[in-house]
Amino acid sequence: MANKIVVGVFGAGRIGKLHVDNLLHRIPGVVVKKVVDVYPEPAKEWAAERGLPLSDDPADIIDDPDIQAVLVCTSTDTHADLIVRSARAGKDVFTEKPIDLDLARIREVLGVIEETGVKFQVGFNRRFDHNHKAVRDAVAAGKVGKVHVIKVTSRDPAPPPVEYVRRSGGLFLDMMIHDLDMACYMAGPDDPVEEVYAVGGVLVDPAIGEAGDVDTAVVTLKFESGAMAVIDNSRQAVYGYDQRVEVFGSGGMVLDDNDFPNNARVYTKEETSADKIHWFFLQRYNESYVSELEAFFESLRIGSEPIAGGKDGLNAVLLAMAAQKSLDEHRPVKVSEIENH
Amino acid sequence: MANKIVVGVFGAGRIGKLHVDNLLHRIPGVVVKKVVDVYPEPAKEWAAERGLPLSDDPADIIDDPDIQAVLVCTSTDTHADLIVRSARAGKDVFTEKPIDLDLARIREVLGVIEETGVKFQVGFNRRFDHNHKAVRDAVAAGKVGKVHVIKVTSRDPAPPPVEYVRRSGGLFLDMMIHDLDMACYMAGPDDPVEEVYAVGGVLVDPAIGEAGDVDTAVVTLKFESGAMAVIDNSRQAVYGYDQRVEVFGSGGMVLDDNDFPNNARVYTKEETSADKIHWFFLQRYNESYVSELEAFFESLRIGSEPIAGGKDGLNAVLLAMAAQKSLDEHRPVKVSEIENH
Amino acid sequence: MANKIVVGVFGAGRIGKLHVDNLLHRIPGVVVKKVVDVYPEPAKEWAAERGLPLSDDPADIIDDPDIQAVLVCTSTDTHADLIVRSARAGKDVFTEKPIDLDLARIREVLGVIEETGVKFQVGFNRRFDHNHKAVRDAVAAGKVGKVHVIKVTSRDPAPPPVEYVRRSGGLFLDMMIHDLDMACYMAGPDDPVEEVYAVGGVLVDPAIGEAGDVDTAVVTLKFESGAMAVIDNSRQAVYGYDQRVEVFGSGGMVLDDNDFPNNARVYTKEETSADKIHWFFLQRYNESYVSELEAFFESLRIGSEPIAGGKDGLNAVLLAMAAQKSLDEHRPVKVSEIENH
Amino acid sequence: MANKIVVGVFGAGRIGKLHVDNLLHRIPGVVVKKVVDVYPEPAKEWAAERGLPLSDDPADIIDDPDIQAVLVCTSTDTHADLIVRSARAGKDVFTEKPIDLDLARIREVLGVIEETGVKFQVGFNRRFDHNHKAVRDAVAAGKVGKVHVIKVTSRDPAPPPVEYVRRSGGLFLDMMIHDLDMACYMAGPDDPVEEVYAVGGVLVDPAIGEAGDVDTAVVTLKFESGAMAVIDNSRQAVYGYDQRVEVFGSGGMVLDDNDFPNNARVYTKEETSADKIHWFFLQRYNESYVSELEAFFESLRIGSEPIAGGKDGLNAVLLAMAAQKSLDEHRPVKVSEIENH
Repeated sequence: MANKIVVGVFGAGRIGKLHVDNLLHRIPGVVVKKVVDVYPEPAKEWAAERGLPLSDDPADIIDDPDIQAVLVCTSTDTHADLIVRSARAGKDVFTEKPIDLDLARIREVLGVIEETGVKFQVGFNRRFDHNHKAVRDAVAAGKVGKVHVIKVTSRDPAPPPVEYVRRSGGLFLDMMIHDLDMACYMAGPDDPVEEVYAVGGVLVDPAIGEAGDVDTAVVTLKFESGAMAVIDNSRQAVYGYDQRVEVFGSGGMVLDDNDFPNNARVYTKEETSADKIHWFFLQRYNESYVSELEAFFESLRIGSEPIAGGKDGLNAVLLAMAAQKSLDEHRPVKVSEIENH
Repeated sequence: MANKIVVGVFGAGRIGKLHVDNLLHRIPGVVVKKVVDVYPEPAKEWAAERGLPLSDDPADIIDDPDIQAVLVCTSTDTHADLIVRSARAGKDVFTEKPIDLDLARIREVLGVIEETGVKFQVGFNRRFDHNHKAVRDAVAAGKVGKVHVIKVTSRDPAPPPVEYVRRSGGLFLDMMIHDLDMACYMAGPDDPVEEVYAVGGVLVDPAIGEAGDVDTAVVTLKFESGAMAVIDNSRQAVYGYDQRVEVFGSGGMVLDDNDFPNNARVYTKEETSADKIHWFFLQRYNESYVSELEAFFESLRIGSEPIAGGKDGLNAVLLAMAAQKSLDEHRPVKVSEIENH
Repeated sequence: MANKIVVGVFGAGRIGKLHVDNLLHRIPGVVVKKVVDVYPEPAKEWAAERGLPLSDDPADIIDDPDIQAVLVCTSTDTHADLIVRSARAGKDVFTEKPIDLDLARIREVLGVIEETGVKFQVGFNRRFDHNHKAVRDAVAAGKVGKVHVIKVTSRDPAPPPVEYVRRSGGLFLDMMIHDLDMACYMAGPDDPVEEVYAVGGVLVDPAIGEAGDVDTAVVTLKFESGAMAVIDNSRQAVYGYDQRVEVFGSGGMVLDDNDFPNNARVYTKEETSADKIHWFFLQRYNESYVSELEAFFESLRIGSEPIAGGKDGLNAVLLAMAAQKSLDEHRPVKVSEIENH
Repeated sequence: MANKIVVGVFGAGRIGKLHVDNLLHRIPGVVVKKVVDVYPEPAKEWAAERGLPLSDDPADIIDDPDIQAVLVCTSTDTHADLIVRSARAGKDVFTEKPIDLDLARIREVLGVIEETGVKFQVGFNRRFDHNHKAVRDAVAAGKVGKVHVIKVTSRDPAPPPVEYVRRSGGLFLDMMIHDLDMACYMAGPDDPVEEVYAVGGVLVDPAIGEAGDVDTAVVTLKFESGAMAVIDNSRQAVYGYDQRVEVFGSGGMVLDDNDFPNNARVYTKEETSADKIHWFFLQRYNESYVSELEAFFESLRIGSEPIAGGKDGLNAVLLAMAAQKSLDEHRPVKVSEIENH
């Protein structure tokens, strides 16, 4: 294990397993020493097949001096605690988003991160997607000049169970948070959002409305520079997982399109047709999960700042909250109203 | 001239000439009898080449009993008067948009149209564009189910002179009015807009700001059905005249793309490249000017309702005014606030 | 008519009418003085509507000293005679292809053209198509370096009547002649074809085989430079009129695609679909007919060489004959075998 | 290891390592027991990292009764011997192509396969590519009706070292063999090729010509059904690894396009641009290597026939030889001339 970064993983659910398998097979220079899950039972066979020790006590990772970095892949309500304990134990932390749903708690976490000086990356995997990253790279390279308008389209193929919706924190915190981060990623780190306006409705499933949420929303952002962004979300695009980004500016435009399982086109007497876009986020964003971990461990090795850090994690929550408030109060909401709350 | 529809044309400026040439060369079953322009001088040679009588007195057309239909292609401030006089003389009217910039005056015009029973079409040529019409046809055919979200991107290649901006009525009445109509065209005639929210800024040219206008704007519409639309406008897209529409609904999505002068693609060591999109609106919307006249004369022949009628003309002005008010007052504005004003 | 080029047109069939209407409406600086057709009856109304004198005697044009240029749009067997007589009368000539189906006769025609020094353009309209021209322009601009491989796909939407096939001269002279010219256009004027190999078959309609022709063929060309071209033809592509070109070379590749009536795309639960490509050659190549006449009259005005001249007309026939001989004799055939025959 | 298929791998070069890593990480239900390489030294560290026993004696695999299936990833001259020995030991065999370069030897191998009844798959990985497979699936589903014309474009980004070219067996056996197989895959198993015609030249690098080979070639195939195919190969496409297939038939057309690393498009004042296509075959065909092994092990489990079997391996060599003979003798060559040689 010489020269390899030793890693502990909290959480052996879907995303935890995905990350572990990527660490095992796709990320060189890393070794997974332990996996911890409070309910280890369902993951036992999976861990055994991989020869991975699996326990139910976070201390097994936190107290292990060999472990340099942790991945926090547990349920949202445990993120903050595990991040804080790991950071205090001197471990670099990669955490799934969101850091927490409570602003004060997020700020506390970020305080500990700063105090301990550990590396900290939040799992905004879409920043590492080959298409979106190519758009951002073009923007960062100045291809579109000064950014004027950003457009993010993000639609799920099918709504989650209403049970899930009820505990999700709402469309903005649960779903649009990714797209709010995407808009900010495109605008770059030096142009914060000033104001948010949201419209939304229940167009997909009345049960979502009964659960107190919306299933379709269009949100407008105004950045400090004067740039604007618009995000549209739907819980149900029957044709697949629709993920597109566009950035328009003084020097041009760059946009991406959905990925297709294949690019065969069929020409018949009736029409020209092609395959449907990807249906499932794991297919669509598959490679981005590898890329975000590559970037995390690279930042550990060379000491660079993570591409999606704590401030980004806080920011996306702030914007989601501002969007929710805008929808509730039917007016544009300044981010400072949330920030200084 | 037996069986042909005899036409008189008011206005021999750029758009008047364009329409006349289309009438002469592309629209069968129509004959242009007279052209009137208050300043006929600059159009004299043009008219002579075509063997067209050109005078400066609207009465030459209005009092000619042979003339069944007129095209109003003069400056906006004269539209209402010429429409009213022509309608009272029993002539069917095709008018360039907008009908007028004053709501009361528009309502008066529409009253006369109703009273006289003449056919009346407003020159929303984009409704007849091959791409946008194909999108609308797919929506009307139920391909996307119930409409949830409409997106209209509309960017000019270069801003007009500031002199023009100053007298234009502002971005919303001058430029976005087309896109507001497009969004309504996509939503269909049975789903009126309820509320409008606008953000905007001066990102292209400070002189436009000094003239009291914005040059970039994002407007959100909320329809009565709960559907939403978002329109983004810029006075300057350096890569060309960017015109795209997308309609998303319960059953799918339909969208169009820009047209290119050619579809050749070049693959080199450095990149894959293609031509730029069309630069000029006359190139891009060339065929739509023919199609809208075809449709107008077809509706005269078969007695059908025009695809873009007086109500559509009024509606687009109402929405533009609501957008302006929203921007000015920094809040969502109900269309009824304008309507009942 | 001062400063305008005065034109006479032989032939008032489909293509003759098309050219005349383009001359009347789309080509400035030109005036059509007379139309001649040996069977003028069916075109009488059409000519009257346009105020054009229509007669049945070619001498009406040939002997008219006002007429500077003629368009030969009659049946193939009359081309050579009309070209020769017009040229001897000092008139510039635009002729539909082919010049003739007999090599000796073509050479005779070219001899007269050279002797009289009149301008001479052959109606290879596809050279003026916006897509193919953009490909050629990229090649000529050196974007693909030295040409290595040219590919031409050309498929008709539906086969012509067998009656027509019987008198057509065969697939190579009737249909592929355009594509042979296209391949040479792409290769440029300095790289003649050395050898031709053809395979073909009757895959669409046995009646075509009974008429002694093939309906599907793949032809390989070898140019003197060593470059290669491959052309595939079918009499029936049920999805429309398939017209594509690709040029590959030492520095890259350039290719074009079919044109579509609109670019709307529909995304549903089942598939992603688009409109069919254009069905009819007049839709697809509509603008190229205007462009070829623009170029012809431009070359008259500025004295430049036509883009598709007599040598090109001869060359395409030579290649078509070589292809036919290759198919008949089941072996590669040198163009010199035909040339020196 | 219960219920898992136990595998031995011959050859730990680039392709052997690739397959082993796919077996370890991507193919469930399989366990790699041993790797053998005659020169094991360079692969030692790689094997150690994976905990894989590595030796230099094929008998270590052939004599191991636990091993049910082998992968033959050694140099071409050793394929036949390892296949035969493994098959005689009752092991199912997946082999890299070609089986051998000698026809008699290939037939001998196929005889042993038939005699022993083991499963046998040849590594025509492109048959498993997501794009090409979608084309084939559409053809097999009858979307294009009866096949008339097949087109395969296949160009490498850069030529191999001349040293390699010299020992490669020539362009047809070394490079086009894949494309010959692709054309046959598209035509389906019931339509064998009857005749081959090749043109070729040295357009990329004179050194390749001095080595007795061509670097650019266009080959025409005639199938028994009358269908035709055309393949074009180049050793150097400076813009990347160009891999496209098109199938045209009585009912329509299906084609695929190259894959791009991302689909971002940049619109600027100068042009519209996109990324280059993939450069390296391992990037482009990455997933097909996984899919072909999945299919192999699936056929072992369910007892189905491999999608690319021994006959396909023989067939591609026959066609490559016919193409070479056609080029050498400058005439169309019947496959039966090679077959019965």
